[in-house]
Amino acid sequence: MMEFELTKEYRDRFQQALDEKDDDFIIRSLESVQPADISALLHEFNSEESKYVLDRLGSEIGAEIIRDLDSDSRQNFLKIYSPEETAHILNFLNSDDAADILHELAIKEREEVLAKLDAELRLQVVDLLRYEANVAGGLMAKELIKVRENWTVNQCIDEIRKQAENVDKFYAVYVVDQADHLIGRVSLKNLVLANANRPVSEIIEDEEVVSVETYLEDTEVADVMQKYDLESVPVVNVHGQLVGRITIDDVVDVIKEQAEEERQIMAGISEDVEEDDSVWRNTRARLPWLIIGILGGLMNAKFMGLFEGELARLTAIAFFVPLIQATGGNVGIQSASIVVQSLANPGFLTESLLPRLGKVFLVAMLNGILLALIVFGANILLFTEWHLSLTVSVSLFSVVLFASFMGTITPMVLNYFGFNPALASGPFITTINDLLGLTIYFLTVKFLLL
Amino acid sequence: MMEFELTKEYRDRFQQALDEKDDDFIIRSLESVQPADISALLHEFNSEESKYVLDRLGSEIGAEIIRDLDSDSRQNFLKIYSPEETAHILNFLNSDDAADILHELAIKEREEVLAKLDAELRLQVVDLLRYEANVAGGLMAKELIKVRENWTVNQCIDEIRKQAENVDKFYAVYVVDQADHLIGRVSLKNLVLANANRPVSEIIEDEEVVSVETYLEDTEVADVMQKYDLESVPVVNVHGQLVGRITIDDVVDVIKEQAEEERQIMAGISEDVEEDDSVWRNTRARLPWLIIGILGGLMNAKFMGLFEGELARLTAIAFFVPLIQATGGNVGIQSASIVVQSLANPGFLTESLLPRLGKVFLVAMLNGILLALIVFGANILLFTEWHLSLTVSVSLFSVVLFASFMGTITPMVLNYFGFNPALASGPFITTINDLLGLTIYFLTVKFLLL
Repeated sequence: MMEFELTKEYRDRFQQALDEKDDDFIIRSLESVQPADISALLHEFNSEESKYVLDRLGSEIGAEIIRDLDSDSRQNFLKIYSPEETAHILNFLNSDDAADILHELAIKEREEVLAKLDAELRLQVVDLLRYEANVAGGLMAKELIKVRENWTVNQCIDEIRKQAENVDKFYAVYVVDQADHLIGRVSLKNLVLANANRPVSEIIEDEEVVSVETYLEDTEVADVMQKYDLESVPVVNVHGQLVGRITIDDVVDVIKEQAEEERQIMAGISEDVEEDDSVWRNTRARLPWLIIGILGGLMNAKFMGLFEGELARLTAIAFFVPLIQATGGNVGIQSASIVVQSLANPGFLTESLLPRLGKVFLVAMLNGILLALIVFGANILLFTEWHLSLTVSVSLFSVVLFASFMGTITPMVLNYFGFNPALASGPFITTINDLLGLTIYFLTVKFLLL
Repeated sequence: MMEFELTKEYRDRFQQALDEKDDDFIIRSLESVQPADISALLHEFNSEESKYVLDRLGSEIGAEIIRDLDSDSRQNFLKIYSPEETAHILNFLNSDDAADILHELAIKEREEVLAKLDAELRLQVVDLLRYEANVAGGLMAKELIKVRENWTVNQCIDEIRKQAENVDKFYAVYVVDQADHLIGRVSLKNLVLANANRPVSEIIEDEEVVSVETYLEDTEVADVMQKYDLESVPVVNVHGQLVGRITIDDVVDVIKEQAEEERQIMAGISEDVEEDDSVWRNTRARLPWLIIGILGGLMNAKFMGLFEGELARLTAIAFFVPLIQATGGNVGIQSASIVVQSLANPGFLTESLLPRLGKVFLVAMLNGILLALIVFGANILLFTEWHLSLTVSVSLFSVVLFASFMGTITPMVLNYFGFNPALASGPFITTINDLLGLTIYFLTVKFLLL
């Protein structure tokens, strides 16, 4: 691969060129560099300098680079662009990317930019702006090649010629009837191979073309495209009319965002935050869950306070609190993540709840018995206090059973009520489980030991 | 979308058709159903019944359905196929899918099936079988459209005609020189639009076509394809000769697997296990990490035992162990997951370590001070024991600082030595952090309180 390597020397040389406004060096040295690599270089310079470079490189490359920025950086960067300049950049983009960028602007600026867009793009973008970002309508682009069912292959190719300027990537031609209802698709490959005078209706591939409605959620769009192994999917409105198409690269972004969101939820980070965000934003994103953890910890303390007498009589009871809580936490997170995985790879006829719970129960029994035996053995060796050892093992077994049950049920319930099931692996549920584990342990102590 | 709905009634009716060997019903009712949906239906029946259905539907559809099974189910299912039958199915697949399936077979069976493959596919598959599954060579397919630089557009289209039977999805034509070195690519779109007599060398899009070497890791292939927004990427050997291509749907699978692996690591599940695996496999996948947690818990107990005297004098010390440990755990996981995220979205010039740690330190200071103040206030209200309250707050502050540092450093170190950095959010590191948090707390108690 022609790899562009960003060295410290090149960076310094480039800075010098910027300081000296050495346009010649700037243009020449970036001539054969991919936009994605230019973007990486520009991260080294401030907004004014970056804009200076983009202005030298021409609007098409500039548009591509701005499109590929992450949302935060872009919002920041576009602040130094006038509405005319922004509109000029957007004119080089597909409708879906232009709409995404407009979504990020303040309402007044958005209107100013919209007013200055090319007429055709403006119409397309206005149509897209009404969709939420997380439904098919918000993912789709308006640019597509649409042909009538009664056309010949030759007419289709003429249409492609006409549209080619606007549509930079396409894999298929969509066939519609007089009223724009989607009838089928023809792959570019079959179009290339077919006789020029053949009616396109004869080379339609699937009579039952897979499409998605505008209101379908982005994660469901991703599921559909993966299930049917599609590189692009047409989007239809409630009347079945073709209104746009979604390509697989958009779906890749959806899948990555999903994974990132899940990671943040599992780690207890409450807003979309990255390492290079400000100290304050990083702090704020973490605080809520930490405070919930603290409140849980205080409740734990209060609860243990109820057993002050018992603890004073036998201090060793306290020694096993970390063991009980850590195991409960680990079992709970394991169980939850297995359910989250099942929910992420939706199966077939949904298995009924009872056999699933039965299996979870069996796994928990096995794990619980094995762990309880290990702990009992270790305790006899390490502490030689068989009464307490038995109590710890019994409550450990109960905690494993209980945490398995909670870990399995919680993501299902969350999912049922429309929350992200990964929350069940996050600190909120963990905090509750800690408290419940402690309760089980002290109740066992109360009844078995003292 | 033409949605196929799998109802209980249909399932029962289908079972009846199977029992009665009512081929007519089977074929007719599945005629216009997508293979992915047929696959869902077949999950309801046993292997023999499923094979019976596939045999009725014809090998092409059968091949597609078998290709889309998950690896475990497929291995199981193919057990009832003879080598001849398996070879017959594989002949309908692309080389990459055929190689993946052969990889799953026992060595003897693999050789038997290989011997019965079509000659061309056999050559391709043999070439692919030597690559590990997780490098570009293991992801790529041999099927691609390759043209010589001195050909005309018309000659290229003739070549496509010849190849079209073997290559079912393609987005571009790759241009090579006499010695098969990759020179460039031409999108199908530009080929459709170009004049038939133009030399293909004139419509090459990027002189510097992005390609990957056979030995590049799958996750890096995914990064390259996303960075340069590619729907397919050519694969070259060490001499720069074109040997295959990878399409974006393979990369979608890589990204999903990565996310799944990370989830399992974070949850402390040690092998690739799903809800529908056996009870024993589910138990075995969870046990190792649970045992590590147990060992950590026992060490916690042993450590607290060293302070038995102090605990006996002031039982309330024990009350705050869960608070300290939970907060340390939460802070550690938050910090680790932010670093994991940075590593997953590789930035530009790697920022040097010191400023990054400086920032982590600032965030930790802020969080630590705020949490310590909250806990101090709450403790004064709830327990009115200001000596102990102060001790708890001071050690909480230290634990937050310390866990931030550990959480940040651990994934970096793991990554540096080639381990998955997500391990830092898993139970092993959490267990160590628990123990260290306890140490900090009891040392603070020792020096400040007693």
